[in-house]
Amino acid sequence: MEDKTKITYPDSEKVYMQGELFPYLKVGMRKVNLTPTVVVENGKKVITENAPVYIYDTSGAYSDPNQKVDLKTGLPRLREPWIQEREVERLTEISSEYGKMRLADKSLDSLRFEHITLPYRAKAGKQVTQMYYAKQGIVTPEMEYVAIRENMNCKELGIETYITPEFVRDEIAAGRAALPANINHPEAEPMIIGSKFLVKINTNIGNSATSSTIEEEVEKAVWSCKWGGDTLMDLSTGENIHETREWIIRNCPVPVGTVPMYQAMEKVRGKAEDLTWELFRDTLIEQCEQGVDYFTIHCGIRLKNIHFANERLCGMVSRGGSIISQWCKMHQKESFLYEHFDDICDICAQYDVALSLGDGLRPGAIRDANDRAQFAELDTMGELVERAWAKNVQAFIEGPGHVPMHKIRENMDRQIEKCHGAPFYTLGPLVTDVAPGYDHITSAIGAAQIGWYGTAMLCYVTPKEHLALPQKEDVRVGVVTYKIAAHAADLAKGHPGAEVRDDALSKARYEFRWKDQFNLSLDPERALQYYKEANHLNGKYCTMCGPNFCAMRISQQLKDCNYDAENEEIEK
Amino acid sequence: MEDKTKITYPDSEKVYMQGELFPYLKVGMRKVNLTPTVVVENGKKVITENAPVYIYDTSGAYSDPNQKVDLKTGLPRLREPWIQEREVERLTEISSEYGKMRLADKSLDSLRFEHITLPYRAKAGKQVTQMYYAKQGIVTPEMEYVAIRENMNCKELGIETYITPEFVRDEIAAGRAALPANINHPEAEPMIIGSKFLVKINTNIGNSATSSTIEEEVEKAVWSCKWGGDTLMDLSTGENIHETREWIIRNCPVPVGTVPMYQAMEKVRGKAEDLTWELFRDTLIEQCEQGVDYFTIHCGIRLKNIHFANERLCGMVSRGGSIISQWCKMHQKESFLYEHFDDICDICAQYDVALSLGDGLRPGAIRDANDRAQFAELDTMGELVERAWAKNVQAFIEGPGHVPMHKIRENMDRQIEKCHGAPFYTLGPLVTDVAPGYDHITSAIGAAQIGWYGTAMLCYVTPKEHLALPQKEDVRVGVVTYKIAAHAADLAKGHPGAEVRDDALSKARYEFRWKDQFNLSLDPERALQYYKEANHLNGKYCTMCGPNFCAMRISQQLKDCNYDAENEEIEK
Repeated sequence: MEDKTKITYPDSEKVYMQGELFPYLKVGMRKVNLTPTVVVENGKKVITENAPVYIYDTSGAYSDPNQKVDLKTGLPRLREPWIQEREVERLTEISSEYGKMRLADKSLDSLRFEHITLPYRAKAGKQVTQMYYAKQGIVTPEMEYVAIRENMNCKELGIETYITPEFVRDEIAAGRAALPANINHPEAEPMIIGSKFLVKINTNIGNSATSSTIEEEVEKAVWSCKWGGDTLMDLSTGENIHETREWIIRNCPVPVGTVPMYQAMEKVRGKAEDLTWELFRDTLIEQCEQGVDYFTIHCGIRLKNIHFANERLCGMVSRGGSIISQWCKMHQKESFLYEHFDDICDICAQYDVALSLGDGLRPGAIRDANDRAQFAELDTMGELVERAWAKNVQAFIEGPGHVPMHKIRENMDRQIEKCHGAPFYTLGPLVTDVAPGYDHITSAIGAAQIGWYGTAMLCYVTPKEHLALPQKEDVRVGVVTYKIAAHAADLAKGHPGAEVRDDALSKARYEFRWKDQFNLSLDPERALQYYKEANHLNGKYCTMCGPNFCAMRISQQLKDCNYDAENEEIEK
Repeated sequence: MEDKTKITYPDSEKVYMQGELFPYLKVGMRKVNLTPTVVVENGKKVITENAPVYIYDTSGAYSDPNQKVDLKTGLPRLREPWIQEREVERLTEISSEYGKMRLADKSLDSLRFEHITLPYRAKAGKQVTQMYYAKQGIVTPEMEYVAIRENMNCKELGIETYITPEFVRDEIAAGRAALPANINHPEAEPMIIGSKFLVKINTNIGNSATSSTIEEEVEKAVWSCKWGGDTLMDLSTGENIHETREWIIRNCPVPVGTVPMYQAMEKVRGKAEDLTWELFRDTLIEQCEQGVDYFTIHCGIRLKNIHFANERLCGMVSRGGSIISQWCKMHQKESFLYEHFDDICDICAQYDVALSLGDGLRPGAIRDANDRAQFAELDTMGELVERAWAKNVQAFIEGPGHVPMHKIRENMDRQIEKCHGAPFYTLGPLVTDVAPGYDHITSAIGAAQIGWYGTAMLCYVTPKEHLALPQKEDVRVGVVTYKIAAHAADLAKGHPGAEVRDDALSKARYEFRWKDQFNLSLDPERALQYYKEANHLNGKYCTMCGPNFCAMRISQQLKDCNYDAENEEIEK
C-alpha cells in the first residue's frame, strides 16, 4: 500500500546544504544521480561520469527517508527556534472568538488535529516581519535559507550567481520580494517570491460544499508539494474549514495562503450584507494564529469603480471581489476591506502574514482584458501596497485572468509602475477563451510569457478550470504544466543555473541514457509510463524516429561517436 | 457502431458560402447555432437571440450529412473541373519507375486503393502553379475560396476584413503566402499559409517499422481533420508506404505533405550512401503524381556546414537532415538536394507541389538554439527560396525545434529577413527540455509566441514526443493544443473576426448557457465529459465556485440581471 507520508523520486537523494551565516541551516534539495556516458572507441569503452543535478525541492520532510512523518503530529517545526529568538510571546490562549468557539465544541473532537499548540504573536510594540528585519539591515536565517535554495548548488558547477543573503535582504527591504512566513507556521521551509528569483507556482486546493474530505485535502496538499507546488492556497468553502485548515498547515512544508472572505461568508451563511469588519477581523486573527502565511484580500474594490464591471462581457469572476462589491452596493458604503486596510496590516504585522492584494476586478474574458475596471483597481492596489510597506507588512499583487498575448506586456509594465515593483502574482493568464477542458494549456501560454516579463508567482490552472473542481490527477497535470511555464520563464530570464537541468536532460537524450532522461524530467513517472507503453525494441534509437534511420544515432555516427546504452535496463 | 466516414459536431450545421468571382464555389463552414439569452425582469422572461458563430472547418465532406463518403472511392474531386481548364494534360500512364513497378505487382492488389486515376501534369512549356497565376495578376478559384474561408463570415457581423481574393493573389505573388494544391489532389479544399492569414497547424501521422496499419493511418487522417488539422504530413517509414499514401491522399480534404527522403531511404534499404539523385528524382515524380501537396526537402544542408553540428549538445535531430549529411560525408560531395535544387523545382512546378525547405540543422535542445549551424542553414534556405520563386514554385521555410522564449523573436526576425518574407513553418518550438510527456505543452508555449510574431504554420507536437509514436488520443490532444496556440496567435495578431468565438463562448459562460459554451469550444466532447463527471447540482452556478457564492451569479445580481438557465438540460 502506498505510504501517504512518503514522497520518492527515482534515483534521487535528499541532500542538505549548510548555511554559512547560520551554520545550523540545512537546506533540502533533490540530488539526481546520473549514469556515466559510455562511448565505444576502437572497440574499447570509455566511461565518463556525469555530474549529479541539484533540483529545487518543495517536498520537505516527505522525501527524506531519514525523517518519519506522522500526519497526526505534523511536520517538524523547523523554524521554531529561530522565531523564539525574536520579540515574540507565546499566548496563553488563542485570541479569536471563533477559534475559541470551535475549540470548545466537543462535537468537533473527532475532526480536530490533536496537537494544536498555542500561537506566537509579536510582543506589544515590537516588530517581527521579514520586511522589518530587512529594512533594519538584518539578514535572517530565512533569508540565507532562500539564497541557498535558489542557487541549486550552481557554484559547484562554476556558475556565477547574484543571489546572496544580502541580495535577498535588499529585495525584501525594497518590497520587490516577499518571504511569506507566519511565525505560527514554523513547519514551512522558507521560499521567496520576487521577479529576481525563480518563478514560483501556487496550487489551489480546498473542499467545496459539494465534495471532498479533510483527508483528501491533506493528501492533495502533499501531492501538490511532490510535483513542485511552491505555495498552497486552501480555498475551502464547505463545512469544517477551520479544522481542515489546521490539518493542512501542520502538514504543509510550503507557505499556505487563504481568502479569509470565504470563511467570513460561511459565518454569515452566505448573506453578504451581514458581513462586518468585526467578524472579518476575528477571522483574520483566527487564521493568523493557525499559521496562514498569506491572505488574499480584495481591498482594491472601491465603491466608485464597481459599476465599471457592468461594461464587461463577463462582469466579475472573482468570488471575493463579487462578495465585497455586493456588500458595498447594499450598504452604499466604501468597503470595510479598504477602509480598515491599516487595521488589517496591523494584524498581519503581528504574525508576519503577507498580504496578497486580490484582484476582484480581474478580467474573466479576452474581451474584458486591460479594461477600465481592471486598471482602476490596479491603481488602488498601488496606493495600498505602500501603506502595507509603511507597516513593514510584506505584500504582493494579484493579476489576471484572461488576457490575449498582445496585451500581456502592457499589463506587466503597468503593474510594475503603479505598484512600485511589488511582486506580481497572476492566474495564468489564459490567452483565449475557446478551450474549456484545456485551460491549463491556454493559461500556461500566458503564464510563461508574463513570468518572463517579470511576474514572480503563477497561480496554477487545471484542466478542469471552468468545468469542475480538480481531482488528484488534475492537480498533478496542473502543477507540472505550471512548472513548465515557470521554468521556461526562468530560462528566458537567465536565472543562475536554470539551464543545468535542461542541458543534463538533453545530453542524456542524445546519448540514449533513457533512465537519466526520465529521472531529470518534471514527471518521471509519466515519461517512463509512455515509454514503456510503446514497447520499444531496445534503447538505441530515438522513439520518434523508430528503429530505422534515427536522426540522433546517425548524427552520432557523423561524429564517429558511438554511445553505448547497453547498460540501460528499463523494466517493461 | 461508429461510422468512420462521418464527423459530427454538436448543434452545428455544415453550411456553404458561395463565391462572387466564381459563383460555383461552395466554401464549407461550421455554423454553431446558439440558444437565446433569457433574462428574467420583473417576473417576465425577456428572450434575446444569439447570432450563430461560423467556424473555420477542416473536416470536408466528412461533416456534411448530405454527402456520402466511401473510403474505397475517395472524397469528391472538388477542384478537378477548375484544374481541367488549365494548361494541363492527363497522362496515359504514370511516369515514375517505382510507381509503375508497384502498380504491376499483383501481390499488392489487396492493399491497393481501387480507383487510382491517371495523373495530370502541366503541358510541356506551360505553367500551372498558383504562384504563376498570381504573378500574372490572375485570381484563381482557389484564391477566392481561401479568402471566403479565412473570413469566417465576419462581414455579416460588421467586422472589417482586408482579406479579399485580390489580397490573397498579391500575397502569393510576393511569396509571402503559399496555397499548396497539387493538381493531382483535387479532393483537397484550398487553404493558405502566410503570416497575414489564420495561423495553420500541421499534424503528422504515419506508420513506422514497428506499428500501425493502412486503415489506422486513414482513420488518424480523418481524426486529425475532425479536430482542426489544416495540413497533414504522412511520415510513414515502414512497409507499403506508396499504397498507404494513395489511401490517405484520396481521402484527405486537407493538403498532404511528405518527406520524400524517407521513402528514398526505404528504397535503398536504409543505406544512405546508396542514395542517388536519379532515385530521389523518381521518388519525387512518384509522389507528385499521387497528389502530395508539399515536400519537405532538406536542401539547406551544405557540406561545409555539417561539422557545425559537432559543437552541439544534441547534434542533429532531423532525420532528413542527418541522412543527407551522412551521404555528403561519405561521398565528400555537396548534397544532391542542393545541387539539383533547380531540377527539383522544375518537377514541382509541373504539378504545383509546394516546397517546404526542411531545417536539417534545427536545434534539438535549448542549448543549441540560434546557433551557428542553424543560422548557416537559414542563410542557404534564403538563397534557395528565391530560386524556387524564380520558377514560380511556392515555398515555405521550416523552423525549430527547441528555443528558449527570449530567443524566439530573434529567430523569427532573422527568418523574415534572410528568407525574404517567405512563410515560416515551425515545430513548436519547445521552450524547455525538462518535460518529456508534456511536450505538447512546452512546445505550445513557444508555438503561440512564434505564431504571434509571424509564423504561418505550426507543426503539432503530441504528449508522446521524444517517447513514442502518437496514438489516436495523442493526436486529438496534440491537435487541440495546437489549435489553442494558433488561435491565441490569431487573437494577438488581430485577425479579422478571430475574437468572435471567444466572445460568444464567454457570453455563454457568463449566462450559464452551458451547452453553448461546450459547443463553441475546441473540444466540445471533452468539456462536456468533465462537466458531467463532476455531477453538478444544477446549471445556475459556475463550476469553479460551487453552488455557494458563485462570482458570476453575484456579479449578475449586481447588475440586477438574472439569467435563466432553466432551459438547459444536460444529460447526465
